[in-house]
Amino acid sequence: MSESPLITPRTLKGFRDYLPAAMLQREKVIATAQRVYRSYGFSPIDTPALEFEEILLGKGGEETDKQMYRFEDAGGRRVGMRFDLTVPLARFAAQHIADLGTPFKRYHIATVWRGENTSRGRYREFMQCDFDTIGTTAVAADIETGLVIHDLFHALGFDAIAIRVNNRQVLTGMLEKLGLADRATAILRALDKLGKIGREKVADEMMQVAGATASQADDVLRLSELKGSNHEVLAAVENLLDGNERGLAGAARLREVLGGMAAAGVPDERVKLDVAIARGLGYYTGVIFETFLDELPDIGSVCSGGRYDNLAELYTKQQLPGIGASLGLDRLLSAMEELGRVAKVATPAPVFIPFFDGARLHDYLRLARGLRSHGLGVEVYPEPKKLGQQLKYADRRGCKLAVILGSQEFEGAKCQVKVLATSTTHEVDLAAPGGGAWNAEVAAEKLAAKLAELLAAG
Amino acid sequence: MSESPLITPRTLKGFRDYLPAAMLQREKVIATAQRVYRSYGFSPIDTPALEFEEILLGKGGEETDKQMYRFEDAGGRRVGMRFDLTVPLARFAAQHIADLGTPFKRYHIATVWRGENTSRGRYREFMQCDFDTIGTTAVAADIETGLVIHDLFHALGFDAIAIRVNNRQVLTGMLEKLGLADRATAILRALDKLGKIGREKVADEMMQVAGATASQADDVLRLSELKGSNHEVLAAVENLLDGNERGLAGAARLREVLGGMAAAGVPDERVKLDVAIARGLGYYTGVIFETFLDELPDIGSVCSGGRYDNLAELYTKQQLPGIGASLGLDRLLSAMEELGRVAKVATPAPVFIPFFDGARLHDYLRLARGLRSHGLGVEVYPEPKKLGQQLKYADRRGCKLAVILGSQEFEGAKCQVKVLATSTTHEVDLAAPGGGAWNAEVAAEKLAAKLAELLAAG
Repeated sequence: MSESPLITPRTLKGFRDYLPAAMLQREKVIATAQRVYRSYGFSPIDTPALEFEEILLGKGGEETDKQMYRFEDAGGRRVGMRFDLTVPLARFAAQHIADLGTPFKRYHIATVWRGENTSRGRYREFMQCDFDTIGTTAVAADIETGLVIHDLFHALGFDAIAIRVNNRQVLTGMLEKLGLADRATAILRALDKLGKIGREKVADEMMQVAGATASQADDVLRLSELKGSNHEVLAAVENLLDGNERGLAGAARLREVLGGMAAAGVPDERVKLDVAIARGLGYYTGVIFETFLDELPDIGSVCSGGRYDNLAELYTKQQLPGIGASLGLDRLLSAMEELGRVAKVATPAPVFIPFFDGARLHDYLRLARGLRSHGLGVEVYPEPKKLGQQLKYADRRGCKLAVILGSQEFEGAKCQVKVLATSTTHEVDLAAPGGGAWNAEVAAEKLAAKLAELLAAG
Repeated sequence: MSESPLITPRTLKGFRDYLPAAMLQREKVIATAQRVYRSYGFSPIDTPALEFEEILLGKGGEETDKQMYRFEDAGGRRVGMRFDLTVPLARFAAQHIADLGTPFKRYHIATVWRGENTSRGRYREFMQCDFDTIGTTAVAADIETGLVIHDLFHALGFDAIAIRVNNRQVLTGMLEKLGLADRATAILRALDKLGKIGREKVADEMMQVAGATASQADDVLRLSELKGSNHEVLAAVENLLDGNERGLAGAARLREVLGGMAAAGVPDERVKLDVAIARGLGYYTGVIFETFLDELPDIGSVCSGGRYDNLAELYTKQQLPGIGASLGLDRLLSAMEELGRVAKVATPAPVFIPFFDGARLHDYLRLARGLRSHGLGVEVYPEPKKLGQQLKYADRRGCKLAVILGSQEFEGAKCQVKVLATSTTHEVDLAAPGGGAWNAEVAAEKLAAKLAELLAAG
């Protein structure tokens, strides 16, 4: 075997390995999302990575269909790898909702695959973190979606966020009022580019592609460009929509959502009514959310979602309205890196025990287990190499404290704790009260307290 | 769209949806494995689900190659879906070990795919939970692997386990001594069936397939069948291997591993020297582990692994010895279900707040957020339906406590807490000290304390 030529170890274009430091950060964000979603009663589900192609293709002809990884399996079935978590949710809901009952609140954190053009800096394998409330049109679910977004970013350490809220019914009502309802798709597609290409080009596109008049385009843009406090914007929206029932109902819903979020304790300055956001074309029908970091607004929305009328129409006659949102994990992690919020740590264990005295392996292993039973992460170096080499290893991995124990320390029932970042050393007395010889349990308990104190001090 | 015929919602054969109750249990076991692996300083990594076919095919001709999902991607590359986490680890290590340094301790919890015959009750998509220490031959790493296995099952609530330990060098030494070294594969393949087909048939196979004499087969089986305390078995092994250096070194290593695990605090009765286990054929070269549940030994090993000489020989000239093991997540979850250890709970939130008074939505939402800030999982029903219907929903999902608040309760600054399993009700005073009107913060704090007390009481 060893005579064969080596195979070059490499990953496919658009795919990545996650090394420890990156993966620790990912697991931390994922665990935070899980905790917040769970605290609201959203339950986890999972669905297969592979599904029948027919299920995933859905409505057909869309960008995602082209990007889907699909093939014939060994049994001759046409299959595909999921490209999002919404299509699998629709299939899942159609299949199981009778057993699950409504409202059904689920989160789903899982990998999806898209054969995208990697030149745009996109990856072909990435993770989505969705939560949805299905089977209710209640405004409480709309409000709660906003609360989850707020609490999620608070838990992630981001209080300086702007949750932008709109309602598709406001835009739809405006188009109805202007007689443009039949050209809604083209108008909204143009409007979605407002932030990128500016007012003039959006108006041009509305006229050229959707056949709007200059005055109609201007009316849509005036609605989208309303500025001021949420109350001022709402009043102006209601004014512009005067006489259109759908639009006014949409504005009233927004009033309820904003009021509910404020009443539940979300600071007013964190929630911003923004009549320009449309979030794509066909899917959303009600309240929509986008979330921006104050420190890095240009990276775009890091958590988006909205209300839809009918989740699973391809698979069931049962109408399933709902609302949900999705954390943009990769975008958020990039942002955290750019903001210097990612610790350069490649180990989950802050405490390091060098294998210093070659005859004392059993004592090191026993002490480490004792420290773990007090909740500490502890790594023991496996070989009695030179202390300097071992400490270099610990330092490079990002361990915080090294517990140095030689025969002298064991005999004196004490140890040296070295703070690796500063090289300061603390001698810790590990003797039982009243003195006495080394006792592993007593030593673990006393040492755990001191290590916890040093870790808390940073 | 709604006029099109419906697509039948279904999953592929061998693939499963995980509904909330099952998924909550999976997430709990996964989180426990993460916690224990981390406590020893194992760091998480991840690798792509899709790799170049050439990388995954590896040595070729094996069962897993036939079972691999593979296809040509849109760019004309031959690709495959990973069928285990060991081959990706080997590729990963070859590619990154120079940056990571050794020893490198990683865990990897991820989905793998195999187009297996589902009639054997196997799934085509399942999860593996591996941990490995790479780049060291130190016995400390062998001992630690045993400690991790022990602590993992302890954390999962299983103290009644048997960790079976062997060393491939003992078997290899015996075969050398008997002059059967060139037929090791066939002999060990037969020996691996000892538990299933019995002594006689194993001896037959050794004779017919490997060309062993009856006396040789008997010698191998006598070694494998040694009974008694670990010390007795070790002494007998050394006796049988007398004169064979490799075998005696293997026995000495076992003595160190057993001694180290005992010294670190693992109860002796949990670790059992078992000279019969070989764990497959080519891969393992040193100490090997299997783990059995005392309550359900027949389901087989729920955590297995061992030491190998050279992880990544297909991809690099650098020799990378290591040791690792893998939790059999699906097998363990089946066992937990069979043992009645799985709670029938479909929600992560034990506390339920009915939307009882239609005018009080804001108060419910604010109270719920207050309770969450005290660490409680709380679900608010989104619609003001009949109380009985809401409580039925909560009960079916497995919520533990319902907090019932109508206008009378808000006015009196109190509430009713219903224990759903028993229908007993507790009235809780939520007024500020000295009495007074409803105050959301005070109410949340007092209620959180009472709810925590009731949850702790079961």
